[in-house]
Amino acid sequence: MDTVTLLGLFAGALTTLSFAPQVVRTWRTRSTDDLSPVMLVTFLAGILLWLGYGLMKEDIAIIAANAVTTILIGLILWVKAGNG
Amino acid sequence: MDTVTLLGLFAGALTTLSFAPQVVRTWRTRSTDDLSPVMLVTFLAGILLWLGYGLMKEDIAIIAANAVTTILIGLILWVKAGNG
Repeated sequence: MDTVTLLGLFAGALTTLSFAPQVVRTWRTRSTDDLSPVMLVTFLAGILLWLGYGLMKEDIAIIAANAVTTILIGLILWVKAGNG
Repeated sequence: MDTVTLLGLFAGALTTLSFAPQVVRTWRTRSTDDLSPVMLVTFLAGILLWLGYGLMKEDIAIIAANAVTTILIGLILWVKAGNG
């Protein structure tokens, strides 16, 4: 694996990691009142487009980061939907 | 400009846009007590690495999205440092 790809994977690990505490908090507390649904859905739409972009460019770093983030946002939206 | 690049730019617009309300809120209220400094710094480090990744791959969509996000996170950290 080349250096540039490693850089991309490391970048993805950091941006995804910085998001993890929110997921843990939401999963534990099951409280989502302070989370804007418009923000979550806009973010999810963007992440899914990034995933498509990564797949089209066959860019493993973009694919990996956005696949994991899709799952994380999905978990938050799952809890929020349950709170409906 | 090709379709894949347009897709990437649109993806970047959405993920950046979903982050904008937080910046507006922080700038208006000047209150940053609820924002984790570890999360902000980890996220900024990740975004800067993505920017480097985009520059090395000469990927305009990645460069544009992460350049704008760097400025947005920079503004939040600026306010937070002032509160320090």
